[in-house]
Amino acid sequence: MPKAEQKKYNRKNKYYHKKQNSIKEEPMESIRLIPLGGLNEIGKNMTVYECKGDMFIVDCGNTFPDSEMFGVDLVIPDFSYVVENKDKIKGIIITHGHEDHIGALPYLLKEVNLPVYATRLTKGLIENKLSEHQLKSPAEITVIRPGDRIQMGCMTVVPIHVNHSIPDAVGLAIESPAGVVITTGDFKIDYTPPQGETTDLSTFAKYGSEGVLAFLSDSTNAERRGNSASEKTVGKSFEGFFEKAGNKRIIIATFASNIYRIQQILDLAVQHKRKVAVSGRSMMNNIAMAFELGYLTAPENIVIEPEKVKDYEPGQIVLITTGSQGEPLSALARMAGGTHRQFSIGPNDFIIISATPIPGNEKMVTKVVNGLLKQGADVIYESMYDVHVSGHACQEELKLMLNLVKPQYFIPVHGEYKHLCKHAMLAEGAGIPKENIIMANTGEVLRIDRKGITVEESITSGQVLVDGYGVGDVGSVVLRDRRHLSQDGIVVVVFTVDGYSDQLLSGPDIISRGFVYVKESEALISEARMAARRVIEKYEHYDYKDWSVIKSKIRDQVSNVLYKKTKRSPMVLPIVMEV
Amino acid sequence: MPKAEQKKYNRKNKYYHKKQNSIKEEPMESIRLIPLGGLNEIGKNMTVYECKGDMFIVDCGNTFPDSEMFGVDLVIPDFSYVVENKDKIKGIIITHGHEDHIGALPYLLKEVNLPVYATRLTKGLIENKLSEHQLKSPAEITVIRPGDRIQMGCMTVVPIHVNHSIPDAVGLAIESPAGVVITTGDFKIDYTPPQGETTDLSTFAKYGSEGVLAFLSDSTNAERRGNSASEKTVGKSFEGFFEKAGNKRIIIATFASNIYRIQQILDLAVQHKRKVAVSGRSMMNNIAMAFELGYLTAPENIVIEPEKVKDYEPGQIVLITTGSQGEPLSALARMAGGTHRQFSIGPNDFIIISATPIPGNEKMVTKVVNGLLKQGADVIYESMYDVHVSGHACQEELKLMLNLVKPQYFIPVHGEYKHLCKHAMLAEGAGIPKENIIMANTGEVLRIDRKGITVEESITSGQVLVDGYGVGDVGSVVLRDRRHLSQDGIVVVVFTVDGYSDQLLSGPDIISRGFVYVKESEALISEARMAARRVIEKYEHYDYKDWSVIKSKIRDQVSNVLYKKTKRSPMVLPIVMEV
Repeated sequence: MPKAEQKKYNRKNKYYHKKQNSIKEEPMESIRLIPLGGLNEIGKNMTVYECKGDMFIVDCGNTFPDSEMFGVDLVIPDFSYVVENKDKIKGIIITHGHEDHIGALPYLLKEVNLPVYATRLTKGLIENKLSEHQLKSPAEITVIRPGDRIQMGCMTVVPIHVNHSIPDAVGLAIESPAGVVITTGDFKIDYTPPQGETTDLSTFAKYGSEGVLAFLSDSTNAERRGNSASEKTVGKSFEGFFEKAGNKRIIIATFASNIYRIQQILDLAVQHKRKVAVSGRSMMNNIAMAFELGYLTAPENIVIEPEKVKDYEPGQIVLITTGSQGEPLSALARMAGGTHRQFSIGPNDFIIISATPIPGNEKMVTKVVNGLLKQGADVIYESMYDVHVSGHACQEELKLMLNLVKPQYFIPVHGEYKHLCKHAMLAEGAGIPKENIIMANTGEVLRIDRKGITVEESITSGQVLVDGYGVGDVGSVVLRDRRHLSQDGIVVVVFTVDGYSDQLLSGPDIISRGFVYVKESEALISEARMAARRVIEKYEHYDYKDWSVIKSKIRDQVSNVLYKKTKRSPMVLPIVMEV
Repeated sequence: MPKAEQKKYNRKNKYYHKKQNSIKEEPMESIRLIPLGGLNEIGKNMTVYECKGDMFIVDCGNTFPDSEMFGVDLVIPDFSYVVENKDKIKGIIITHGHEDHIGALPYLLKEVNLPVYATRLTKGLIENKLSEHQLKSPAEITVIRPGDRIQMGCMTVVPIHVNHSIPDAVGLAIESPAGVVITTGDFKIDYTPPQGETTDLSTFAKYGSEGVLAFLSDSTNAERRGNSASEKTVGKSFEGFFEKAGNKRIIIATFASNIYRIQQILDLAVQHKRKVAVSGRSMMNNIAMAFELGYLTAPENIVIEPEKVKDYEPGQIVLITTGSQGEPLSALARMAGGTHRQFSIGPNDFIIISATPIPGNEKMVTKVVNGLLKQGADVIYESMYDVHVSGHACQEELKLMLNLVKPQYFIPVHGEYKHLCKHAMLAEGAGIPKENIIMANTGEVLRIDRKGITVEESITSGQVLVDGYGVGDVGSVVLRDRRHLSQDGIVVVVFTVDGYSDQLLSGPDIISRGFVYVKESEALISEARMAARRVIEKYEHYDYKDWSVIKSKIRDQVSNVLYKKTKRSPMVLPIVMEV
């Protein structure tokens, strides 16, 4: 499915995906899919669906900045297309309550007030999130259930129950005049879920046997062979650890949204006569909300306030905490660093990190593990102990789903390019003709009907960076400067001239930050000052002085001197003051 | 083995590790071990051994900066202790030619000229490295072979052959008046090495049965169960890929120092009638040197210049390249980005990334894989294909070695704290009494004799940062500034005053970099200017002006304004010019 090849092909044939199997003739309608994120990346999931002038949105997630996005807090999709078409949009349907599906919602709702549709738990998580953002007009969130029929203009959206690492996740069947489009959302197939039902395979199969035009499926684990393990296997492992912990305090770090896992911990705590305390703001908020909505249940007095932990023996306590990714400000990282306000770690602690490091976080997790071990705690952190299972379908599950849904067209979504590629290969192996598998890109408009898929002109899309209150005001220039500053710091060359005579009145002075330790580099700084002075002197007798030229010469000369002596390239910032 | 517990214990007992098994009485000598790196970290391996006033050094490696060390190129050990004791030091023995064992050598030799001892290939790699640094007096490097007896004052050092991911690696037996100390260096046990012998288990066993005082062993893979796979399994996989590649060009990225792997590729190329070209400077240098020394062999005319590749069909070429870790400037990364001067990638390429991402590099490798796939190439990159094996011993090998060496004292080395801990547990399981297992720290002086190990006072040690030509001139202040600059940029507030009257002559002007896109933030900048001006005006009528106080006030006021409006904290740098 090489992109280069496909693009060439697209150019040649407007309707290049010819009809493959005969379907009874109807007046030809088409449905348009416009992914605004989630393709060739993990996170930022957001797709617009359009048919006969009606539109709706599925999901509105954020992603996290990569290591080159210095100082950026969050990355969200570009909403331009949504804002332009706001009058056509009937609503936003959210498949589940993870950040990569709801994290950008507050930012969207600040620009466009749209009705939101979500399952009960998802609604609770969205409300927690919105309340942090203090929106002017509170969003109207309608609770949806699997099997509901949600009218979005000419389209009807039917949520389908799926398993994931958070309860109340759904896939969606979109019944449109052009045919049925199915999106899985994030899913796995758990035949022994600790709560609730297995992914509703029958409904996917029913749509499949009636005919599905296009299928969008989660590619996160397309590289992993076999089947994902059941969440229940984690519970089984935990049973062993509760035995092994003996009289030690148990501390478990996991994702705040993994209600299943938290329920399993609660159950084991009851069984082992331990009280449960919770640490970390997001964990506290989520657990409180999940209890309120009935997603978590426990006998009264099992959950205690963190302050009360000291009133119990270590063997009577389970502490559930955030920080399973080694986040530097999380509760667990502070415990590891010995800076947690309430809990200090020692040989009486038995700690389980119930998560796998997300790529990029490995070093942070290792730092936390080292810190906990150094304080004498037992730390269980390896994947070999089954302390975590993934929430995403592996290859066998993906193939099963493709087999049930039997789509005419297949669009792998939710993954880096390499994941989408692998998913495409699986689909080809599962019998979908290669030319009916589309490697789409964010911002492309896919027009689909029974005769084919056309990739139409691209619309405005991309990533918008959130830094503090600023949304989109940090662009490539600012990032380039931050990167430059981070590498070798800054050297300011400042001097004052007479505004009338253009004569040098004072300076040039050199001030540096993040470049060298100045006290030990006086000779170097004075050499840089000399270089700047030579430039100024050279232009001293010019009648007309173009300061921008002089500043640029100073920048070059000072940079050269510094590079020659240090092999570093700080940002050189000449400033001329006129009096 | 909790550190806190052990420290407490140390304080109580000067000789806290009591003699465990009876050894025939001799006059009691002791040997001192001073690790200058390699403990609680991966890399920077360097240990000083001392007995009766004689000293020598084992290894002199560097490590790479972590993500917080902005702009730093390299991290090397603090050499203070070596410099102080240079007259006692008989030489440096290098166990093998990887960066984490030789990378700091040029920096050490610039400070202290010492004789170096290394095996033949290692010598070649060191010479390549030294020539880049243009040392004044070329180092004297003596070639050593397994079984040699190298006199280091009162100590005799005997190299022992071990397997690793580079040829010519050795462990060391140090025969001292205090007893025998054995260090494995980096090792694995490969029963079917593609070249040469298996790790010399008999010699380790011989020392073991004669009595070993202390044992230092490689902990890198202490978390991995079972045995490491043989390098030959990679060759087997490659065979399959050469078949599968058919008429496509084969491109293989691997570590430049893995001569075994390169030889296997050469052999397969001969077999499949393909020519071999090499891309990437370090790969070219290493391969040329290895051919010269006879570590690589191939029929004439097999290796061709990269420029000649275009004269052959894709199916007649194997290209060996650097970049297996996704390094942004490497040959493979440039091919992935479409910016390589010589090679462009397409559907006729079959690419094998023969390495596992080192923790921290996962995202860079993914970026390269995505880039190659997008250009239509086949890319083999997963561990499931056996395209790479580790060069470090896994748990079963570590236990075997402990069993053969049967040391009185065991010191796990070469690893993060979590690896050392796990290795300590393995040793305990293998029968070493817990109190005879020492979790040491860089900079601690371990005095060992048959009666026990004492941790003596610490000596100067730590990490020295190399940035460009600067060695050690980037310290915590400079790093803190770079970090600050990277997050939110800089805002310079500059104004000119009359040196006599202290009256404001011009400004305050605001210049920012990496903070906001200025053209769209004029109101904000002007508000910051007003805040600065208010401070200056407030002090206008003071007779004596303390500019440092005024500058600090400006910094506070401007920071406040900017934070309130943007929730960002750029570095604010007030500059006052006097004329």
